[in-house]
Amino acid sequence: MSCDYLINNKEMARQNGIVQPLLTDLYQITMAYAYWKSGKVDDTAVFDLFFRTNPFQGEFTIFAGLEECLKFLENFHYSDSDIEYLVQTLPPNIEPEFFEYLKDLTCKDIKLSAIEEGSVVFPRVPLLRVEGPLIITQLLETTLLTLVNFASLMATNAARYRMVAGKNVSLLEFGLRRAQGPDGGLSASKYSYIGGFDGTSNVLAGKMFNIPVKGTHAHSFVTSFSTLDDLHTAVLLHAETQKQCNLLELAVEWRRRLSAVIDVSPEEASDGELAALISYAQAFPSGFLALVDTYDVKSYAFLNRSGLLNFCAVALALNDCGYRAVGIRIDSGDLAYLSVLARDTFHQVAEKFQLPWFNHLTIVASNDINEETILSLHEQGHAIDCFGIGTHLVTCQRQPALGCVYKLVEINGQPRIKLSQDVGKVTIPGHKEAYRLFGADGHALIDLLQRSSEPAPEVGQKVLCRHPFQESKRAYVIPSKVEHLYKIYWKEGRICTFPKPLVEVRERVQSSLRTLRQDIKRNLNPTPYKVAVSDDLYTFIHELWLQNAPIGELS
Amino acid sequence: MSCDYLINNKEMARQNGIVQPLLTDLYQITMAYAYWKSGKVDDTAVFDLFFRTNPFQGEFTIFAGLEECLKFLENFHYSDSDIEYLVQTLPPNIEPEFFEYLKDLTCKDIKLSAIEEGSVVFPRVPLLRVEGPLIITQLLETTLLTLVNFASLMATNAARYRMVAGKNVSLLEFGLRRAQGPDGGLSASKYSYIGGFDGTSNVLAGKMFNIPVKGTHAHSFVTSFSTLDDLHTAVLLHAETQKQCNLLELAVEWRRRLSAVIDVSPEEASDGELAALISYAQAFPSGFLALVDTYDVKSYAFLNRSGLLNFCAVALALNDCGYRAVGIRIDSGDLAYLSVLARDTFHQVAEKFQLPWFNHLTIVASNDINEETILSLHEQGHAIDCFGIGTHLVTCQRQPALGCVYKLVEINGQPRIKLSQDVGKVTIPGHKEAYRLFGADGHALIDLLQRSSEPAPEVGQKVLCRHPFQESKRAYVIPSKVEHLYKIYWKEGRICTFPKPLVEVRERVQSSLRTLRQDIKRNLNPTPYKVAVSDDLYTFIHELWLQNAPIGELS
Repeated sequence: MSCDYLINNKEMARQNGIVQPLLTDLYQITMAYAYWKSGKVDDTAVFDLFFRTNPFQGEFTIFAGLEECLKFLENFHYSDSDIEYLVQTLPPNIEPEFFEYLKDLTCKDIKLSAIEEGSVVFPRVPLLRVEGPLIITQLLETTLLTLVNFASLMATNAARYRMVAGKNVSLLEFGLRRAQGPDGGLSASKYSYIGGFDGTSNVLAGKMFNIPVKGTHAHSFVTSFSTLDDLHTAVLLHAETQKQCNLLELAVEWRRRLSAVIDVSPEEASDGELAALISYAQAFPSGFLALVDTYDVKSYAFLNRSGLLNFCAVALALNDCGYRAVGIRIDSGDLAYLSVLARDTFHQVAEKFQLPWFNHLTIVASNDINEETILSLHEQGHAIDCFGIGTHLVTCQRQPALGCVYKLVEINGQPRIKLSQDVGKVTIPGHKEAYRLFGADGHALIDLLQRSSEPAPEVGQKVLCRHPFQESKRAYVIPSKVEHLYKIYWKEGRICTFPKPLVEVRERVQSSLRTLRQDIKRNLNPTPYKVAVSDDLYTFIHELWLQNAPIGELS
Repeated sequence: MSCDYLINNKEMARQNGIVQPLLTDLYQITMAYAYWKSGKVDDTAVFDLFFRTNPFQGEFTIFAGLEECLKFLENFHYSDSDIEYLVQTLPPNIEPEFFEYLKDLTCKDIKLSAIEEGSVVFPRVPLLRVEGPLIITQLLETTLLTLVNFASLMATNAARYRMVAGKNVSLLEFGLRRAQGPDGGLSASKYSYIGGFDGTSNVLAGKMFNIPVKGTHAHSFVTSFSTLDDLHTAVLLHAETQKQCNLLELAVEWRRRLSAVIDVSPEEASDGELAALISYAQAFPSGFLALVDTYDVKSYAFLNRSGLLNFCAVALALNDCGYRAVGIRIDSGDLAYLSVLARDTFHQVAEKFQLPWFNHLTIVASNDINEETILSLHEQGHAIDCFGIGTHLVTCQRQPALGCVYKLVEINGQPRIKLSQDVGKVTIPGHKEAYRLFGADGHALIDLLQRSSEPAPEVGQKVLCRHPFQESKRAYVIPSKVEHLYKIYWKEGRICTFPKPLVEVRERVQSSLRTLRQDIKRNLNPTPYKVAVSDDLYTFIHELWLQNAPIGELS
């Protein structure tokens, strides 16, 4: 418990350090001043935060970042030094009373409704609805977008990797060194875990978010040993008898015996590598998982299997000492071929020396892996139990940003619409509710936006669902289940629905994904999920559109 | 001065919060234990940090992140809670003395040499050389990579935008909302500025790093006004006479008069928009830069110029009050066409009303801009003075990660080589120095790696430069200037060369880029810059390679 306390404190410190009101675009503050100066202090507004297109050429998105948004609201406050900075930075003729106003500003009058974190979500359905005084709702824009955009993108990316990998393969996030700086790395670890990864290599993420951390050793560990003499000690106590064993002698003898099975002579294998693996096995006799490709160099037209031979020798030596090795990691080359080769070798050793557990050693692969690599490996056939994924996961290589936007939809009770030359960018005006309608088989059928004044759709009752912009696209739906997508999370200056712990958000991702039909989730040419508006909302949008779009003149 | 103090404190708090020894991959700590357990505590190592390929299909990279690396070394220390977490996380049989060892660990025995931050750098030339006890040098790997990779990638991306934009165009970073979380956004702002941007919208980055911050208003500001009645006050004091002016009356009158010039009738222009612009002008009479495309909707086959008409009306009203407007921002549509149209309009207004300064109003453009967009706009012809760039800049869309690696090159005075099936991944072993050789015209000719035991190349003396892996590729170079690329930045537990302030690093980027020939910097099919090794180093690499690569057997 004392440790949990420390962890939360550390996270709070991090949050308070960076996620603060000044983490925003300057124009939020200049707009705030213009509003204040124009006497719009008492105006109230409704903003929707939503995205327009699913990332990664897919047809779904995972919503994440809500907990961090709530912490931001909780801590929203301009410090004296913030105010001092703004006084220096804004033009000199700003009225001093405005800074007094900012100094007292908090989120006490804000109401935040949101979809549950970890849910599958779709274009145009607001993820957050922010209501309250115009100035403060506007001031929240950039920070909320920053917190939701990357979190949701990462969680979605991770969930996609989880789907293509299948249930029987473990996934580890190894991306810290390629992330967008320190906090990009931490966020990547957190939201990969939420999206369905099993662990991370990032120790600080493990500490802060209680995520399982994993890792063994690098190539440099192997190259730091040159000969067997570099091993200052090779003693290991037997797991049960506590008798002293000499791991080096045992391993050298096993390497000799193994050359009959593995078809590599001990002279071809690297002694430095053997020393390194023995050193690692001494340190982690119950957790011996070794990187085996340091000297696996295709020197002419064949494969030198130094690593595999040395690994098996040390694993068998450990077995003599009462320990079972865990497995190997491959970090280069043809992962399908090499993993099958390694598995075959393990089978041969298992049979030859009557050690059935050798069949089930873990094979970890980790080299520039992305969704396509995994799909291709599945097609070729492989024997990999676990993927370690770095760059492509944490940078979201296939699409490095989610385009959430934050749009004004109502002011002082009056709906607002943002028109655009591009119909896809027209906003859906007014204070709305969102419902997910399910079919009899439990699958989600459609998301429906309605005006908040309308009654909720009911189970067993026919609902007319319309495409928001295309008049002829309409469908009747009779839902077997109706889910109201919004809960109020923040009201009257405090969190009123507590966000769920990380592990529950992680479970929510999988349970929410299970409600989607397979063709919507598939990697290639997925079917779009439908998002509709009620007949009332349809009419409302189009009347407002006509009012706001003046008739032009052809010239 | 008191404010500077606050800023530095804030930045330190941020650094201490996240950039700490646990911000690393777990395998660094498991390796440390294996080294410790094997009695390798006194081993000394040399690691090189370098990349293998320039990003963005270019032929140069900007090195950045050094200052943050030095802060990390300065603060390196495992806290009690870190140790407690590691005790819980590592296997139960770890010897407790190891944790005592970690508790006392600092960077006092490390020596860090580096290339100057902001320099142009090339593949295989180490950016950092880290020397010291094996365990601590290994433990620094992931964090140093995290700090250098994204910083250098961002600075390089920004420098590329700077080059394609040309000298006469301003560049602003607008990417916070699309960055990889809060700190990703801050790093993006900082390193964009270093790379040559002129400012950022990110207020916290402005405060922390003393970067100019810029911004005006968003579409939501415009849509929050529906009619002229939403303007509670329209009074502005004349800049000189201090007499009360009614901006609304003036602007409405100007809008009527302007319709002759702009060919849009006042009825076609949005009153809500006019109210919004007047409100903004009242707040920032000397900084009136207005977003003009909120209602610029192509409603049939032509352009409605509501925004341009309203802007000119308010600008002329401000002029009556003794103020000069700054300009407009366009955030959608055909930026080449619209900017030229806006400029033509400004020319017409300038001529009609005898206001020459109207010709020079600033035009800012900001919609999904990347390197290619800028090049294409230049080709088409445009009238844009400033680009606001977000997503593509901060996510480094074209290549979201730089692949710096950290490789062991020497241990206890013995060189180490990492072989690979891929020649490009073979490391250059040993303790090395790097020199940049310049030609008589001041351009950099080649970077030369030598063994540290060799004498430095001399001006006017012929040097044999060899390709590190291709025997036949050799050239003699007679340098007119020789630059030793490394300085020692950290030694005996403290910073010994202080990193330069941000603005000087920013200048270094431009001066360093000027030493590169244009064909190396160009966007399309740039010429590769040459990186060579000395004849001595060449022989050394290849002898070591043969020693370490066993002769295989064809089968």
